[in-house]
Amino acid sequence: MIDFSTHPDRYRHWKLDVDGEVATLSMDVSEESGLKPDYKLKLNSYDLGVDIELYDAVQRLRFEYPNVRAVIVTSAKDRVFCSGANITMLGTSSHGEKVNFCKFTNETRNGIEDATANSGQTYMCAINGTAAGGGYELALATDHIMLIDDGSSAVSLPEVPLLAVLPGTGGLTRIVDKRYVRRDHSDYFCTLTEGIKGKRAVEWKLVDEIVSKSALREKSLERARQFAENSDRPSDATGVALVPLNRTITDDAVTYDHVSVQLDRDQRVARINVAAPMVAPPTDIAAIHAQGAAFWPLAMARELDDAILHLRTNEAELGTWVFTTSGDADLVDAGDRALLDNAGDWLVRETTLFMKRVFKRIDVTSRSLITLIEPGSCFAGSLFELVLVADRSFMLDGVFEGDNRPPATLRAGDINFGPMPMCNDLTRLETRFLNDADAVTAVRASTGRDLDAQAADDLGLVTFIPDDIDWEDEVRLAIEERASFSPDSLTGMEASLRFAGPETLETKIFGRLSAWQNWIFQRPNAVGDEGALKRFGTGLKASFDVKRV
Amino acid sequence: MIDFSTHPDRYRHWKLDVDGEVATLSMDVSEESGLKPDYKLKLNSYDLGVDIELYDAVQRLRFEYPNVRAVIVTSAKDRVFCSGANITMLGTSSHGEKVNFCKFTNETRNGIEDATANSGQTYMCAINGTAAGGGYELALATDHIMLIDDGSSAVSLPEVPLLAVLPGTGGLTRIVDKRYVRRDHSDYFCTLTEGIKGKRAVEWKLVDEIVSKSALREKSLERARQFAENSDRPSDATGVALVPLNRTITDDAVTYDHVSVQLDRDQRVARINVAAPMVAPPTDIAAIHAQGAAFWPLAMARELDDAILHLRTNEAELGTWVFTTSGDADLVDAGDRALLDNAGDWLVRETTLFMKRVFKRIDVTSRSLITLIEPGSCFAGSLFELVLVADRSFMLDGVFEGDNRPPATLRAGDINFGPMPMCNDLTRLETRFLNDADAVTAVRASTGRDLDAQAADDLGLVTFIPDDIDWEDEVRLAIEERASFSPDSLTGMEASLRFAGPETLETKIFGRLSAWQNWIFQRPNAVGDEGALKRFGTGLKASFDVKRV
Repeated sequence: MIDFSTHPDRYRHWKLDVDGEVATLSMDVSEESGLKPDYKLKLNSYDLGVDIELYDAVQRLRFEYPNVRAVIVTSAKDRVFCSGANITMLGTSSHGEKVNFCKFTNETRNGIEDATANSGQTYMCAINGTAAGGGYELALATDHIMLIDDGSSAVSLPEVPLLAVLPGTGGLTRIVDKRYVRRDHSDYFCTLTEGIKGKRAVEWKLVDEIVSKSALREKSLERARQFAENSDRPSDATGVALVPLNRTITDDAVTYDHVSVQLDRDQRVARINVAAPMVAPPTDIAAIHAQGAAFWPLAMARELDDAILHLRTNEAELGTWVFTTSGDADLVDAGDRALLDNAGDWLVRETTLFMKRVFKRIDVTSRSLITLIEPGSCFAGSLFELVLVADRSFMLDGVFEGDNRPPATLRAGDINFGPMPMCNDLTRLETRFLNDADAVTAVRASTGRDLDAQAADDLGLVTFIPDDIDWEDEVRLAIEERASFSPDSLTGMEASLRFAGPETLETKIFGRLSAWQNWIFQRPNAVGDEGALKRFGTGLKASFDVKRV
Repeated sequence: MIDFSTHPDRYRHWKLDVDGEVATLSMDVSEESGLKPDYKLKLNSYDLGVDIELYDAVQRLRFEYPNVRAVIVTSAKDRVFCSGANITMLGTSSHGEKVNFCKFTNETRNGIEDATANSGQTYMCAINGTAAGGGYELALATDHIMLIDDGSSAVSLPEVPLLAVLPGTGGLTRIVDKRYVRRDHSDYFCTLTEGIKGKRAVEWKLVDEIVSKSALREKSLERARQFAENSDRPSDATGVALVPLNRTITDDAVTYDHVSVQLDRDQRVARINVAAPMVAPPTDIAAIHAQGAAFWPLAMARELDDAILHLRTNEAELGTWVFTTSGDADLVDAGDRALLDNAGDWLVRETTLFMKRVFKRIDVTSRSLITLIEPGSCFAGSLFELVLVADRSFMLDGVFEGDNRPPATLRAGDINFGPMPMCNDLTRLETRFLNDADAVTAVRASTGRDLDAQAADDLGLVTFIPDDIDWEDEVRLAIEERASFSPDSLTGMEASLRFAGPETLETKIFGRLSAWQNWIFQRPNAVGDEGALKRFGTGLKASFDVKRV
């Protein structure tokens, strides 16, 4: 089992140093500490384990270090910044492992950009040696790239010439769509094993500046302080410790305080329930800070995040996720209200941004998503996003026989109209009603009102509203049918239907770049016995089928 | 060899009837006339041969029928409109054949949308029976879909449940991004083998209206006449016959009047030369019409189009296309001038739109594109697009020893600043200088001026400007190096770098949907011995690896 929880005390690959408003995150990969024994993580190359630590560090910097306003990403090794994903690891991984690894890596890098854009924590990169492939892609996720000018250190994306795969964790997209490197320069650059260094790297916009080796630390601190000046993070706040989650994993369940997952292996379904707070979350800033990691919106988001990562990585055969909720909608509403009313507070902002990222993770998950809205549920505000995130939803019209709870309702809240955009930068409601602003307006007008099945259906918020006679059969059939389809065609279909509307860096990375990379990860020219990924390091040249398709 | 040239007299699968301003294009596929003998084209299913005829008909409607303002696409068969791509054909095709087939089909459908949007020739669809998969996708390419309400005729995209592949020729993209079908409705619809009919098809926006079987012809003519009213096509013009191209194919060359292709099989390169007109093209409308298909811009575009399709389909191992031009830039300029000065004329408009579509075909071609700018070339205006279309360009700085021709020059023209957008809706210059409007302005200011290598380089228009000493080695190395890389990784890289900037229906179809489909076309769940595509029709159920990746 891959575990996504860790702590700086246990890091084997990264060092986190905080000095006032500037943090330095130094990559210092332990060769012997790969997740599997098949490879050594030489030259600061990485596997999923390295990236799990990076994700942890990025999260902690946001929550535990409110005073940090700029983060310098660099390497603790001499002459090498990072040589990218470990190639032997890629060569020995299954298709699913490679794809999942790339997705998580992409999400972490998008999270770095989110910190820079929205948290007042600007990431920059001090490249103190070779930055190859995924190493340079990591740099590309920061907003300022410094490269030492020592006559040899270069940035490169050598995947195509060396490995017959793509710089697939954002590299190709970010050079042309974020850094605006000219297409022909990009084309040339991506075919160079040795990369580009010095002045040309700046002229071609591959890096922002070059500095001498001896001046790198000083200059990068100087830049970091400049970025820090524009930050609105507090200078005297106390961080919130991200204490370990209270998680229990058994054969057929994963249980946290607010989130529980039933693993239904016969039906190949994970049933994910999110429970409302048991008591009203605090409404004032001091009380929210006092709760810290126990503040329901933060606690729930952390648990859901961990559950998603666990299921994605460790439960590949559970192809459908069924979301339910339970508890008091008013208390969910109260949690949302706490976020919205205190939006100016750094911790509240971080919590809201985190919740946004967790829902985005669901959007790009290659599982069929079905949400069931039944009596006893609490799909209000932030949890209403679990309806909108679904490929399909069912809402019971009425009650079950013998159940004396009132019929299920949905309730839109202000939080559904801005703070939780998808990676296409639209809210889920805007995406759902693309080109139909009136429909969004109608939902907005219903804010705070409990909508029964008929009202929710009239507003276009749910897919089907069976009554208690049809409910069981309809839901069962939908789930069984889903399990009978080819998982691959479902993945392609869902990825195509979920992101209507405008495209962004993120949709391009998840929708386009990843799809091409996944294709290449299946092609004999890369993964066949004579393919480049298999033959790398053996001394044998790869043998290619030269036909273009 | 697949030949893309045909003529209505030779159609085996379509009937083209023109009655004044309304044309009817009826699909009537001949079961026995597939391109290969392995399958029968039952139930109006299609293969590449059927689509070649459709492409021919769409082109002829534009050029040969200036009076046609609306086109009704329907079927001549009873109870079936079109059952999509032939599945046995797909099951027995190589990966490359499948991918190429889908690309061409996509281009033809985009061409239908281009006619509706820009030529005053509105396509609509009268669905008189089952419209399944590619059949419904064809309907989606028209701007108005009528479906008969006979209790059984439905539209469907059953690829996922039946075949474990995607509705990959635009279907998934067009339902959510063109017709704005809600995502959950789309999800449900795409899992139904039987599709959706009647009122629900209208309510869910899958079709625009339902009509009784007996009223279909009359109602569709009525609608067609309504669309015709808004057209600006002439009512009394004479069409231009698209006479057969003067083409010679040998083992190592394909030669037309203005375009010639050398097939360098050792280097795996196709060298494509486009020659300027020999005499100045006419400048007034009457003379342009008198030349008809011999008018250089139209003749050149037709030849280039045919050469592209030929090379793509029949020469898969020639992985790099090298573009050159020869002749007098002033005469190219004169041709462009004829187009720009007479832009209001229907034939000129069609010619310009066609040229646009031909360059777009190059953009989405999975070949490495290199353009060489040497003395004797004529990269002006429309042919300057051949520089901008390239992944990389080389311009000789100076002259070759012993060559008394003047140094090569480039010349931007007004035609480069609007009429030839890429499928991202930006010009190639805007895409090249994304986020740098000043750079585009600087090129615009140079319009009409001959730019030598240094000037072209200063403006960012070419990649490298070697002198005669370095030229041969640099170009040779670039071509050899390209041939040494994995063709698949080049395809993924080029597709990722060529379309920076905004996304459109077309970039989503070529960049995202196609990439997912290509991936699925490699997956054992679809194409393995127990995959759905292989087992379809055998009576055996497909067997899936249920792991999600």
